[in-house]
Amino acid sequence: MYQALKHRVLEANLLLPRYGLVTFTWGNASEIDRKHGVIAIKPSGVEYDQMKAEDIVVLDLEGNVIEGDLNPSSDTPTHLELYRLFPALGGIVHTHSRYATIWAQAGKDLPALGTTHADYFYGDIPCTRPLNDSEINQDYERNSGLVIDETFNMRGIDPVAVPGVLLYGHAPFTWGKNAREAVHNAVVLEEVAAMALATRSLNAHIHLQNALSDKHYRRKHGSNAYYGQR
Amino acid sequence: MYQALKHRVLEANLLLPRYGLVTFTWGNASEIDRKHGVIAIKPSGVEYDQMKAEDIVVLDLEGNVIEGDLNPSSDTPTHLELYRLFPALGGIVHTHSRYATIWAQAGKDLPALGTTHADYFYGDIPCTRPLNDSEINQDYERNSGLVIDETFNMRGIDPVAVPGVLLYGHAPFTWGKNAREAVHNAVVLEEVAAMALATRSLNAHIHLQNALSDKHYRRKHGSNAYYGQR
Amino acid sequence: MYQALKHRVLEANLLLPRYGLVTFTWGNASEIDRKHGVIAIKPSGVEYDQMKAEDIVVLDLEGNVIEGDLNPSSDTPTHLELYRLFPALGGIVHTHSRYATIWAQAGKDLPALGTTHADYFYGDIPCTRPLNDSEINQDYERNSGLVIDETFNMRGIDPVAVPGVLLYGHAPFTWGKNAREAVHNAVVLEEVAAMALATRSLNAHIHLQNALSDKHYRRKHGSNAYYGQR
Amino acid sequence: MYQALKHRVLEANLLLPRYGLVTFTWGNASEIDRKHGVIAIKPSGVEYDQMKAEDIVVLDLEGNVIEGDLNPSSDTPTHLELYRLFPALGGIVHTHSRYATIWAQAGKDLPALGTTHADYFYGDIPCTRPLNDSEINQDYERNSGLVIDETFNMRGIDPVAVPGVLLYGHAPFTWGKNAREAVHNAVVLEEVAAMALATRSLNAHIHLQNALSDKHYRRKHGSNAYYGQR
Repeated sequence: MYQALKHRVLEANLLLPRYGLVTFTWGNASEIDRKHGVIAIKPSGVEYDQMKAEDIVVLDLEGNVIEGDLNPSSDTPTHLELYRLFPALGGIVHTHSRYATIWAQAGKDLPALGTTHADYFYGDIPCTRPLNDSEINQDYERNSGLVIDETFNMRGIDPVAVPGVLLYGHAPFTWGKNAREAVHNAVVLEEVAAMALATRSLNAHIHLQNALSDKHYRRKHGSNAYYGQR
Repeated sequence: MYQALKHRVLEANLLLPRYGLVTFTWGNASEIDRKHGVIAIKPSGVEYDQMKAEDIVVLDLEGNVIEGDLNPSSDTPTHLELYRLFPALGGIVHTHSRYATIWAQAGKDLPALGTTHADYFYGDIPCTRPLNDSEINQDYERNSGLVIDETFNMRGIDPVAVPGVLLYGHAPFTWGKNAREAVHNAVVLEEVAAMALATRSLNAHIHLQNALSDKHYRRKHGSNAYYGQR
Repeated sequence: MYQALKHRVLEANLLLPRYGLVTFTWGNASEIDRKHGVIAIKPSGVEYDQMKAEDIVVLDLEGNVIEGDLNPSSDTPTHLELYRLFPALGGIVHTHSRYATIWAQAGKDLPALGTTHADYFYGDIPCTRPLNDSEINQDYERNSGLVIDETFNMRGIDPVAVPGVLLYGHAPFTWGKNAREAVHNAVVLEEVAAMALATRSLNAHIHLQNALSDKHYRRKHGSNAYYGQR
Repeated sequence: MYQALKHRVLEANLLLPRYGLVTFTWGNASEIDRKHGVIAIKPSGVEYDQMKAEDIVVLDLEGNVIEGDLNPSSDTPTHLELYRLFPALGGIVHTHSRYATIWAQAGKDLPALGTTHADYFYGDIPCTRPLNDSEINQDYERNSGLVIDETFNMRGIDPVAVPGVLLYGHAPFTWGKNAREAVHNAVVLEEVAAMALATRSLNAHIHLQNALSDKHYRRKHGSNAYYGQR
């Protein structure tokens, strides 16, 4: 029944190794069909080069499997929580891409240092607080979603304007209108994470001017955007 | 009418991903036909692997589209300003290549640290001053061209001898006799930017001797050049 | 007689260049057949692209060649010692992969800094003490195995939970249930070594929380594991 | 007449881009035929993907062209001087490979930090002193050869045991019994240069033990070598 959705989610997952964002099976992409109240996500621990559309798992928003014979990604509860808390999200990607993971492991926000960042992310990309031991020991994956929401709420960040986050000690999540856009943002995040690492080694206190952040974000987003073919 | 020009500009644009200088659509190459007073440039936001010669946009020097159905690159006003201010330029390339962008984001000149640099760039590659808020908010892309000109003028740098610049907080522009040479210089800039980053981490105050800079630049350029087949 | 074993060992060795873990012939994989008391290992100094199953050398546990016309890897005594001292090991891999070797050359333990590490290695990956001159001058390769065992014993580390080590001034060894799993762990070690290098440059004193290390290791290992298809 | 020599030199030159050691035409390999008193070397500024055996230039040891229609590499006088001063050399390679060049630009010896280095280079790889202005302005390429010889003589280094050097502010030269072995050593130099850069960032004062340097060098070289198939 959800053939088109499963194909889109398969395609998005296959883009992850193609863009060099995953080693082995360390990543997953999902997409939500909000009309029917279901998500489709990568199966857990399956190699990308053997994955087929029928391996993609379809679940309802409580996490019950609707279609598919395999276990869904072990990160499924995080995806479900994010779809529930952020109604604008259509697709989510999780990877352990090297440079974004480095910032997550360092427990630091990824600062906006250039227009490459500003073209896609409006301001710094936050790193969550560490989960405490009880949050880790019980409902870990669900709590990973909750701490992302807490981070955006407490800092007043709009998840549409900043379509990604660094999960403390773990790795990045990105999102978008659909799974493909979430992959796109995962590529951007990895590139700006690599650039920011070296930029700060050259100039420890640099930060992007607000005016330039505004300009570039609005050149690509919103009603006055003038980048691309419209 | 401008078939040959459009083909050369297409070819130059396609070299950018081949040399690993661009992610997605983050780059553009242009070339000027000074006899006919037109430039040809990449369309805005079009994927490289789908681009055809007829997608290349031809404009007059006031920025009016002469040929092509697509919007030209959003950076077109910067290209036009540079062609106007630097009469020796035949081709221009803009990328967000990783290492050159790191220096631009750090707001630092790229110092000449070795003969690889000196073979192509005669002295440090300047980073512009930051644009102020009003320069950003109004005519941003044109002001990006103006601040490059200001940088070369105030420091007395010849844009033929230093065929590239770092735009503060943004990324590099390079140029040359034609679009292909501008691409060539973009590759060189990226490589020397990568080398300079690590060189300075090993030796914070090193700089290339003037005599070596002279020697290598003149080995490849000018009437006494003796590199290559002449 | 040991066709299947030799084929598995060939396959594991060929994976090393495919994963970018070796330059030239700088690496070797072996596997043990404990029932028959033999190991199979790469021949010394043979190029990967010319290696065939019949080139793989089979030895008994005293190091006598049982099958094969070529000299076994010069690191064979280290492999033999590790199989003898760590009865749980089924396969061993040695490489000079760049980032793991950097940590070995620096003489430092590779700290657990994120969940990528914790998914495979339960705690820091130890670096051995330096061998002293007499250990180097006599029975060097065997002493390399002994100092690995000493390291795990003195620190009370279970080699099943931490399937790898950094040999001081030299390079990594990894292991697993078989040669293929040892290769897998070599890939993981290289990736977490690269990440840890930059993580510590951003945050010099960060370390992974114990609860997160426990959680991720047990998500993938042991009776309560729930990652993958079981 | 020198067909076999030219083919070997062509092959060695073509290996340089294949191993990722050169950008554009930034490198050259040569080999000497000491019986006939000639060397063969890459032509200057010719693209690797268009080079044919007949493009390889054969010169006598005074630098007179014996065979070939193209100009020889502009670095030919450096090669000739090294062949004259170091009688054991059979092949020479010059590249601007990234990490070796970084150490040359930093003006620092490449320290022996691990067994990967010791397997090929017996001790630190020296960086020459800077040439003075008159050495640069007159007979620059020849003086580059002379300063390499001066470096090895003054420090008492055997060029067979340390088959490479960093030319201050410029880039590496490596050598070997023939052009192919010189390429091999260029690959090793690049890899150990990359490793040493990061090793020193983790541990600023580390250096390889002498006993380990001796052990690994002699495992691969000299009458007691036991690495490989002999």
